[in-house]
Amino acid sequence: MGTKPTQGQTITLSAPVSILSGANAVGKKEGAGPLSSFFDYIDRDDTFGEKTWEKAESGMQKKALSLACEKAQLEGDSLDWLFAGDLLNQCIGSTFAAREQKLPFFGLYGACSTMGEGLALASMTLDGGFGQRAGVVVSSHFCTAERQYRTPLEYGSQRTPTAQWTVTGSGAVILSRDGYGPAITHVTVGKVVDKGITDTNNMGAAMAPAAYDTISVHLRDTGREPDFYDLIVTGDLGRVGHDLLLDLFRLDGLDLEENTADCGMLIFDPKRQDVHSGGSGCGCCASVLTGYLLEGLRAGRWRNLLFCPTGALHSPTSSFQGESIPCISHAVAITAQTA
Amino acid sequence: MGTKPTQGQTITLSAPVSILSGANAVGKKEGAGPLSSFFDYIDRDDTFGEKTWEKAESGMQKKALSLACEKAQLEGDSLDWLFAGDLLNQCIGSTFAAREQKLPFFGLYGACSTMGEGLALASMTLDGGFGQRAGVVVSSHFCTAERQYRTPLEYGSQRTPTAQWTVTGSGAVILSRDGYGPAITHVTVGKVVDKGITDTNNMGAAMAPAAYDTISVHLRDTGREPDFYDLIVTGDLGRVGHDLLLDLFRLDGLDLEENTADCGMLIFDPKRQDVHSGGSGCGCCASVLTGYLLEGLRAGRWRNLLFCPTGALHSPTSSFQGESIPCISHAVAITAQTA
Repeated sequence: MGTKPTQGQTITLSAPVSILSGANAVGKKEGAGPLSSFFDYIDRDDTFGEKTWEKAESGMQKKALSLACEKAQLEGDSLDWLFAGDLLNQCIGSTFAAREQKLPFFGLYGACSTMGEGLALASMTLDGGFGQRAGVVVSSHFCTAERQYRTPLEYGSQRTPTAQWTVTGSGAVILSRDGYGPAITHVTVGKVVDKGITDTNNMGAAMAPAAYDTISVHLRDTGREPDFYDLIVTGDLGRVGHDLLLDLFRLDGLDLEENTADCGMLIFDPKRQDVHSGGSGCGCCASVLTGYLLEGLRAGRWRNLLFCPTGALHSPTSSFQGESIPCISHAVAITAQTA
Repeated sequence: MGTKPTQGQTITLSAPVSILSGANAVGKKEGAGPLSSFFDYIDRDDTFGEKTWEKAESGMQKKALSLACEKAQLEGDSLDWLFAGDLLNQCIGSTFAAREQKLPFFGLYGACSTMGEGLALASMTLDGGFGQRAGVVVSSHFCTAERQYRTPLEYGSQRTPTAQWTVTGSGAVILSRDGYGPAITHVTVGKVVDKGITDTNNMGAAMAPAAYDTISVHLRDTGREPDFYDLIVTGDLGRVGHDLLLDLFRLDGLDLEENTADCGMLIFDPKRQDVHSGGSGCGCCASVLTGYLLEGLRAGRWRNLLFCPTGALHSPTSSFQGESIPCISHAVAITAQTA
């Protein structure tokens, strides 16, 4: 049986849960970025053959999950569970995709941290003895996010330097109680952290304290030093949030510059692609995990990786009402090989 | 360890997970209904002392959870996990409440089925060996739901006969691996079911097939007959959906009229309270469960109860785009006493 310290937030799984496969489907801009070769499917025009952006986002989830099942040599209906989420109101990116997947379904909302929440719940579910295999799929789409959170695309609104660019992408992972390869050993479930940031064009600043909190708790709960991990990779803090995270750790006397990275900074090229502080969205860390990170673990580039998606849990309504931005981060420890 | 049949959707927990306590906070109209005496807190004006309806909804969640902790004689921070959800865009009813609760947090979106999803995940988490106690809290508020899903309250729009009234209410449950009293023994996790209903003023018709699907699977997976349960209680099908559910079972040669009920029909008095087909919203079945149903189990009115919240997983955007309404239902088997 897995364990959790009474006052802690970290589960030590009784046996590592294998990541049988990961796959992704992304948009044109992401496909033109530095991680291009790590994407399984790059759409030509971000419509994924659909007539609305919302349907395109569901189409992207279906694509990513079916590719992940193919890679794992599984029929989609042989999964015991599907955990899914996205950024859309009422999570319609996920629910409309799930309609065709005929799987016991758990809908999640953790904003851009959803892949972390899904990996945590799915690995706990399997390690707890419930079923053999689970799928986790999340997505975001630049065009659905812009019209829901910001202004119509046609306005061509100016963006602030701290703003981030919502990734058009979906990542899916198949977890299994058996199998060989990268595997999840620990999950640290985050608390909601709100340091009073109200600028919705500066999510990095809002989310950095949540990432700091969860990573600190993870290190305390496991007794590990930061350098146990070859890479600690946050979800989508972007350049601004990433620098703040390093500052927060410096106050504790820790210099994490060498072994940290951020998916929001990895996915786009700041020189060629005009994304200001970096990428964001559930699909950002999900498509980086299912390509670049898993392949790096398989290739031996890293042996131990701490994957820490971050999410901002506000809404346009809460911001209009003057509220600050509550944030969360979950940490998932992945080791390169299981025996 | 718990078990799950390979092609099934039902978990048999290795040991029943106790419901240490349940509590609720509801609005004025709910407090004037037939279940009045089963509510812990009835607000005078549905504001819960806050300046916006959305903040009122968060306030209601905090109230329900703190009352549930009080009844269980627990400090709030002694819970291992909090599972929470609501109907609002980006689930701000839950995330803003969670900001003050300082607990490892899982955000869920299952529309009005969220209490079922939360009970399923929380009981699987505890039975899997992860922690001792978990809280589940969900909410809905008539005024936040109307302005988000329908028209400004000030319009006083006419409602169709099949329409339902969103309950202003929050219900919280504290689950524990030990304890005496009502306990969860099985959970059946629903699939997304969509039979093509597009009328968003007839959620009962959209959701009834999902309830039928999950209850049927539950009976098949457990080998139980419907009359094993003293009461099979759906979430918020309302009168229209409840009648359709009975019709669907009649096609299988089963008459469930005697041992079924619907929280949406129980919470309001159709003669005195003008709610058309009945109540709805995450808070509907949650406030009925945490009052009337748990107290009935404790008092010996029922010995075995199947609690089946139902949810409609669409959004205004998906409806504007001509989509039908995907739905889901989860079933939670609760027995009156554990040894």
